[in-house]
Amino acid sequence: MTTDEKNERISLKAGEIKPFGAMPVPKVTPELLSTVRSGEVFSLEQIVETGVPFWEGHPPIVISPYVRHGDMPELAPASVGNEITTLPMHGGTHIDALSHIGQWKDGEIRLHGNIKVKDVMGKGGYAALGAENFPPIIVKGCLLDVAGCQGVDVLPDSYGITSEDLKNCQEKQGTEISEGVAVLIRTGFSKYWKTENERYSNCGAGINIDAARYLAECKVAMVGTDTEAVEQWPFDPEGPPLPVHTYLIVENGITHVESLYLEKLAEAKAYEFLFVALPLRIRGATGSQIHPIAIT
Amino acid sequence: MTTDEKNERISLKAGEIKPFGAMPVPKVTPELLSTVRSGEVFSLEQIVETGVPFWEGHPPIVISPYVRHGDMPELAPASVGNEITTLPMHGGTHIDALSHIGQWKDGEIRLHGNIKVKDVMGKGGYAALGAENFPPIIVKGCLLDVAGCQGVDVLPDSYGITSEDLKNCQEKQGTEISEGVAVLIRTGFSKYWKTENERYSNCGAGINIDAARYLAECKVAMVGTDTEAVEQWPFDPEGPPLPVHTYLIVENGITHVESLYLEKLAEAKAYEFLFVALPLRIRGATGSQIHPIAIT
Amino acid sequence: MTTDEKNERISLKAGEIKPFGAMPVPKVTPELLSTVRSGEVFSLEQIVETGVPFWEGHPPIVISPYVRHGDMPELAPASVGNEITTLPMHGGTHIDALSHIGQWKDGEIRLHGNIKVKDVMGKGGYAALGAENFPPIIVKGCLLDVAGCQGVDVLPDSYGITSEDLKNCQEKQGTEISEGVAVLIRTGFSKYWKTENERYSNCGAGINIDAARYLAECKVAMVGTDTEAVEQWPFDPEGPPLPVHTYLIVENGITHVESLYLEKLAEAKAYEFLFVALPLRIRGATGSQIHPIAIT
Amino acid sequence: MTTDEKNERISLKAGEIKPFGAMPVPKVTPELLSTVRSGEVFSLEQIVETGVPFWEGHPPIVISPYVRHGDMPELAPASVGNEITTLPMHGGTHIDALSHIGQWKDGEIRLHGNIKVKDVMGKGGYAALGAENFPPIIVKGCLLDVAGCQGVDVLPDSYGITSEDLKNCQEKQGTEISEGVAVLIRTGFSKYWKTENERYSNCGAGINIDAARYLAECKVAMVGTDTEAVEQWPFDPEGPPLPVHTYLIVENGITHVESLYLEKLAEAKAYEFLFVALPLRIRGATGSQIHPIAIT
Repeated sequence: MTTDEKNERISLKAGEIKPFGAMPVPKVTPELLSTVRSGEVFSLEQIVETGVPFWEGHPPIVISPYVRHGDMPELAPASVGNEITTLPMHGGTHIDALSHIGQWKDGEIRLHGNIKVKDVMGKGGYAALGAENFPPIIVKGCLLDVAGCQGVDVLPDSYGITSEDLKNCQEKQGTEISEGVAVLIRTGFSKYWKTENERYSNCGAGINIDAARYLAECKVAMVGTDTEAVEQWPFDPEGPPLPVHTYLIVENGITHVESLYLEKLAEAKAYEFLFVALPLRIRGATGSQIHPIAIT
Repeated sequence: MTTDEKNERISLKAGEIKPFGAMPVPKVTPELLSTVRSGEVFSLEQIVETGVPFWEGHPPIVISPYVRHGDMPELAPASVGNEITTLPMHGGTHIDALSHIGQWKDGEIRLHGNIKVKDVMGKGGYAALGAENFPPIIVKGCLLDVAGCQGVDVLPDSYGITSEDLKNCQEKQGTEISEGVAVLIRTGFSKYWKTENERYSNCGAGINIDAARYLAECKVAMVGTDTEAVEQWPFDPEGPPLPVHTYLIVENGITHVESLYLEKLAEAKAYEFLFVALPLRIRGATGSQIHPIAIT
Repeated sequence: MTTDEKNERISLKAGEIKPFGAMPVPKVTPELLSTVRSGEVFSLEQIVETGVPFWEGHPPIVISPYVRHGDMPELAPASVGNEITTLPMHGGTHIDALSHIGQWKDGEIRLHGNIKVKDVMGKGGYAALGAENFPPIIVKGCLLDVAGCQGVDVLPDSYGITSEDLKNCQEKQGTEISEGVAVLIRTGFSKYWKTENERYSNCGAGINIDAARYLAECKVAMVGTDTEAVEQWPFDPEGPPLPVHTYLIVENGITHVESLYLEKLAEAKAYEFLFVALPLRIRGATGSQIHPIAIT
Repeated sequence: MTTDEKNERISLKAGEIKPFGAMPVPKVTPELLSTVRSGEVFSLEQIVETGVPFWEGHPPIVISPYVRHGDMPELAPASVGNEITTLPMHGGTHIDALSHIGQWKDGEIRLHGNIKVKDVMGKGGYAALGAENFPPIIVKGCLLDVAGCQGVDVLPDSYGITSEDLKNCQEKQGTEISEGVAVLIRTGFSKYWKTENERYSNCGAGINIDAARYLAECKVAMVGTDTEAVEQWPFDPEGPPLPVHTYLIVENGITHVESLYLEKLAEAKAYEFLFVALPLRIRGATGSQIHPIAIT
């Protein structure tokens, strides 16, 4: 495949909205709007700033105020300020594009939809499944407060959340997981955000492969957590690496939202809501920082 | 003011939602929801990619895929890809925070709310009025298709849109500008996006100070355009620089959204809608890239 | 090859000095020192700043002063300033590492020394032939002022310098090209630096494959020019792309220095000198910015 | 001062060489060359790579290989690789420009030569005393192996080196500090480079104000160490912050080189040599990464 052919594949244009894996083209139906009762809005984003946790090997967030008020006296009496923001994936609240995870099969890496990595990967990022393909996300959301249901403020380090844990939590909360829903799972790990960054990044509670299978059977549209990896970290050393990422993203087209802030939502016992997230349409990227909200 | 005192001022925490200038804490009332009729969603973001226009003096958008699938064979059969994204303000569809514009008064630069720049500006950006203060934006939106109303596909270069132009457009469209609305103004300049970048950046049609005054009298919450500057560019050399930015942002706390993609919305003659934008809460920053939507 | 094995290959340590392709371990012999007569030093670097030419597709140089004097009042009466500098290859005066250019052979890309790219390329750059391998460069240098010898201030756009041109120039100047010398070739293109950037980047005079073969036969250690590509740009569309880069770097291990500033050296008719360049030892990188000098 | 006036001050052009504080225009005299005996070259640079120590608050070094071999099949049979390198000051072996440090006097910050910061600081960096002003550095160098003279492999954490320590070391080594020399001081702290980064950055041995005064009296041209701060870190909390930086750089125009690699030089007991460093001429910057060498 030549660069020209690759470029041709990078075809999504401004204004176009298509499904992206399990995430549908949004349609704001009366049924969906019925999830809005009080009309209150919850912000589920951690503040984007220097000093937030990130995986070893990734560069940190850098916010560099390179033009400051007063720098351009020729504009007086007006003045302007600007900055450059360098954002790595896995810094801050973000969503994984389907191009983020691949799987080796028959000597080649394939992405969701059996797309060969070598056909779409290049200097401009990914010619398929990049973040520009995200539709606006407007779906029914539900919160499973697993930590709360187990009576703790935070789950133990590296705790593997099972399908049983999810079902027990659903029962306690009275929460149904219907098709197309965005499931947000609370572990309580926000407690370690900026206070114990290494613990946040390296010891996260998260779902195991059994819970991932259960969520895929429920046909959820998306899974989000208040941790850095969605899945139990580290993953079970006996099994293959990144089992949950691989199973959900590559095999099922179900994206992940990581490092959510869910504390106030859990305090309010707001288990069902309208979930809205608007990923930046970054051409060829493997994800995007987002500011997701819940409307209750 | 010491660094510690400045840091103390940087106090907004994850989950907190406050008004930001003219932008209120969102409340999704039945009245607001009544703007949703078909439930169709329009994406108003230009794709974030290299090669998009930006103002001279600003660095461009850089998307650098530094970890590629296959780079970490120790994760096989899984594989991962990542990138670093360097985003300058005024690259892509974005919203201005109130810290973006100041005004000299009595020998000092002051921001909205009479805040002295010297009290809040530092290496970490702005200790007040930074982008982290954006609430989720969920307001009634209206489109004024000024180009369409004048029977052209794009307004002339550097055309100054007057209050008369806006009122004529309102009348033709039958569009009311009520208090708290987000007004989106279409000039047709998206035509030059990536095709004539210099023209897009340096010759934009936009509102003049007279139109800005009219919009402030209408008590709008926000003004957005499909151009890089919202205001007529270059501004009138007879008057002070950046008159619209200064008047709306510093004096009235009314933020700007720039480089919107409004073509499909205009084609659909969708003049009223629910407008949603979710700025990243970047601590101390002068703005944020956004993916705004209109729900009709 | 696993990541661990790759890391093992990245073995050069601080203080170690090895040959790098045609560039030897430096030894400052009396013979070499005999090139120093007046002891005058010429700076051959273009200033590193925003607005310098660079190839389309590369991001520009960004210098962002993110900590300014006054930002840290806790250090008073001292104060500090800092910046972040983002430097792409092919921005400014720089040297190509041997990892910069490869060649397809039998379905695989190979670097100098027949090293397979797939064995050494990864997220950390190149596990072999990266810029950290540059020894300090201290060799005899000679200037071939081809523009001057042809009686013009600058060679025509895209002019292909032949071996005949080089030999004629040598004869006129009385300059010998001995083994191990750094040959600097002047085209006069510095004239377009920052004044006609597109011309500088896209229409550079430079050596053609015939001249490259002649220089390799002379067993030079390095070739430098006052252009962006060393070779004639664009290269002959009838032949293979980048013939000079491929021939000199991949086949002969002879690195390139690009965007030299040679005007004062040429004015002084300083055709032989001690050439010194000290590339930054950037692990895994394909080159380094340098400030080369000539001591006459 | 307007932006235009500031720009006018940024006047140094490629090829120009001027003195910079205590650092003279280089002249390679026979006397200077007499320091070269064996002709052996020592590399004094730590490898530039991710994971090296840096001060809290500074972003780290990022090397991002965004164009890889194989990415541009249109160039076959040639192929190219590139990267973007993001270099902060105080990451890696570097030299401080005179713009790096200032001093409050009468309510204003002044740089070396009594230049008011407010007259020269702006979005493009510093209109005076920026890194572009560095001449090529070619001076007599001497190594004071303070750790070695005290019979230890590394000095104690935060050890303050006094003038007595320097004089004792000179006596033991038989090393004279003559006017215009570059003095390199070995503490042994390279031992902690990449092995104990926090210790390297926060607990460095270094000269105290008394030793700084002694070196200024000797009229040295430059001071370098194998630590991050040259001066004792932390500095004496009883006195003013950064006393050595302020005294040497602001008051005496004597620049610092930090994070040198001096192990092999010390092993060879090479106490006198020709010192060469070629700082990148980065317009307006507060310093430059360098690859310094010693020729013995």
